[in-house]
Amino acid sequence: MKEKNIIYERSLLAHREWHGKLEMVSKVPIEDRDALALAYTPGVAEPCRVITKDPDEAYQLTWKDNVVAVVSDGTAVLGLGNIGGLAGLPVMEGKSILFKEFANINAVPICMKLKDQEHPNSQEIIDFVKALAPSFGGINLEDLSAPHCVEVESALQDIGIPVFHDDQHGTAIVVAAAMMNAAKAVNKDIKDMTFVISGTGAAGSAIIKMLHRLKAKEIYGFNINGIINKKYYDQYNFLDQQLSSITNSGAEDLTLTQAMKRADAFIGVSAPNVINIDMVRSMKPGSIVFAMANPTPEIGYDDAVAGGARIVGTGRSDYPNQVNNLLAFPGVFRGALDCRALRITENMKLVAAYSIASLVDKESLKNGIVLPSPLDPRVVPTVAEAVMMQALKDGVARL
Amino acid sequence: MKEKNIIYERSLLAHREWHGKLEMVSKVPIEDRDALALAYTPGVAEPCRVITKDPDEAYQLTWKDNVVAVVSDGTAVLGLGNIGGLAGLPVMEGKSILFKEFANINAVPICMKLKDQEHPNSQEIIDFVKALAPSFGGINLEDLSAPHCVEVESALQDIGIPVFHDDQHGTAIVVAAAMMNAAKAVNKDIKDMTFVISGTGAAGSAIIKMLHRLKAKEIYGFNINGIINKKYYDQYNFLDQQLSSITNSGAEDLTLTQAMKRADAFIGVSAPNVINIDMVRSMKPGSIVFAMANPTPEIGYDDAVAGGARIVGTGRSDYPNQVNNLLAFPGVFRGALDCRALRITENMKLVAAYSIASLVDKESLKNGIVLPSPLDPRVVPTVAEAVMMQALKDGVARL
Repeated sequence: MKEKNIIYERSLLAHREWHGKLEMVSKVPIEDRDALALAYTPGVAEPCRVITKDPDEAYQLTWKDNVVAVVSDGTAVLGLGNIGGLAGLPVMEGKSILFKEFANINAVPICMKLKDQEHPNSQEIIDFVKALAPSFGGINLEDLSAPHCVEVESALQDIGIPVFHDDQHGTAIVVAAAMMNAAKAVNKDIKDMTFVISGTGAAGSAIIKMLHRLKAKEIYGFNINGIINKKYYDQYNFLDQQLSSITNSGAEDLTLTQAMKRADAFIGVSAPNVINIDMVRSMKPGSIVFAMANPTPEIGYDDAVAGGARIVGTGRSDYPNQVNNLLAFPGVFRGALDCRALRITENMKLVAAYSIASLVDKESLKNGIVLPSPLDPRVVPTVAEAVMMQALKDGVARL
Repeated sequence: MKEKNIIYERSLLAHREWHGKLEMVSKVPIEDRDALALAYTPGVAEPCRVITKDPDEAYQLTWKDNVVAVVSDGTAVLGLGNIGGLAGLPVMEGKSILFKEFANINAVPICMKLKDQEHPNSQEIIDFVKALAPSFGGINLEDLSAPHCVEVESALQDIGIPVFHDDQHGTAIVVAAAMMNAAKAVNKDIKDMTFVISGTGAAGSAIIKMLHRLKAKEIYGFNINGIINKKYYDQYNFLDQQLSSITNSGAEDLTLTQAMKRADAFIGVSAPNVINIDMVRSMKPGSIVFAMANPTPEIGYDDAVAGGARIVGTGRSDYPNQVNNLLAFPGVFRGALDCRALRITENMKLVAAYSIASLVDKESLKNGIVLPSPLDPRVVPTVAEAVMMQALKDGVARL
């Protein structure tokens, strides 16, 4: 905890000194009237005319082909909750520098002010992003709360550029990659495994959907109100309704303790300390525990190991198997931008997961390592290539 | 004309080569896990918490204090008309590099897609800019058509950051500066002068309002339908209604030819060749002609001189007295950002004009030079300081 406080203090000091983590630079020096006439008026009229005739020329004549907007409404910033767009700006700037540093993508933080911050209106955000889209090659939605994040993202899939909510799919891709390797490490097949997911927000719901796509045998989803169960369909919001149709096939009213006894794997994207050593001990042999609540996980790394978990992952960088979105989003966007993809398909997300998983060698797997390091330089190009090839197969590439 | 075509061709080639005139760079290298923990999670939570408590801290902890959005709906791009946001992107990128090169301000091109591009809805643009505002220190509206540009801008004056429509006020400031010096050069006082303005769109309307603020004796405003006349108030849109109350005090139905006979100065921001040598010849002695239609002015430089104009200005860089917004907007925003101004007041615009005018020495004035070069390095700091001092006087500075 003390170490944590030191990081916070150091970060605040560093932010005061940086005074912004981003800078915009001009690639075109304006030294004289001729340079001005070429880059601005009157010369610039010509590229405008060319784009008017053929909108795709914007990808060649402007920076559109390599710039992403990191859009947030500030409703679910880190573990801080609904603090609003402005207060979330340091995170969106941070995300933007990661895009640049890891994937050489220009990224612009766009922090929205909602009309009613307490009750986010999906249509307001959808309209905003549609209006914003022309000057960007892609949109990374960030730190939107559930369930409106799902509604917003899915309404934006046909605007002609990739719109990707990282808290949903970035996390789901990395968890899926880790789970593919973890299953291999314990000699199981996802198709035969039972999963308990604690947390059905942005990340949890996307993880459930991806495990379903990977044909998981059974999934039990838990949130603050208990297990998701299609018996209560009418009381659910649209997202829990979606989840109820792909989880808990027997429509059982299990407690988390009961469900854990059936589980091959536990995935936590919820709250501190929701499971304990005994619950891990009760899991099926060769148990897998990914406890990713931040900063305090659902169960500590050492406790999970003490409970007999064979593979343990967390959200923390100071333990093995850090489930970090940095493994996914830079490569996913690099691949999507490189082929000017119209959208990011489910298949593209799946191959991103497979490609991340492929970077862990057998030796590491034996030692319980199921994810590469987020700083491994192979990650971005490997993911990018897989994503681009899949975009071509799926017919969503413009090149 | 041929020379013009060469500039267009060269610009298109240059744009193909540049592949975007802007680049975003990270000021914080991410070399290891510690750097990641400081600039991103978990450390970044602390600056977020600090801004949550005190929103003004965003000016210190993020790049907000030095970043402007260049927002356009593409309804009036250069002389090209309503070509839409995407096709206007090369212009907005160009504007953004000028912000950086001339005033060291980070600027982000934001090109909107309107729901109905042919019938721009002011409220849609107002809502968009309000939602966009948190991550920016100022908004430069660009290439919005009249009259909705006036409605949009005035509705955004209370959002807590400067919102400035350059096509209105940038042009008006530079024209006012030129006119102050031109009046001096011909030994007249604006208060005793009669003005004919051709064009009552974004630029023309703002010029008329500024001349009115400078207590011009009489102003006649012309547009495609003839002279603005309060007799026809009920048939006008809100902008022409505003103008009708400060122009044509006698409510006369003058033709442009008739009005020119009474004019000390002609200001054209309209269309090619709307006046001729004879009309200039008919003006009051010591006549001033600013013919700024682009690329072909209301009257050619040489014709205006042949008609006896004592001071001539155009929008072109290849003649003296180029009326170029570059003289105004970099310094205006630099001054406004440096004191974290809440808005840009009418006084701040006036002092910007005075400060630009002050940079022309008596010797130049004698030779008919009424504006400094847009590349004169004194311009930005001089304007910025004047604007900031006035913001402090007007009580709109946050520092």
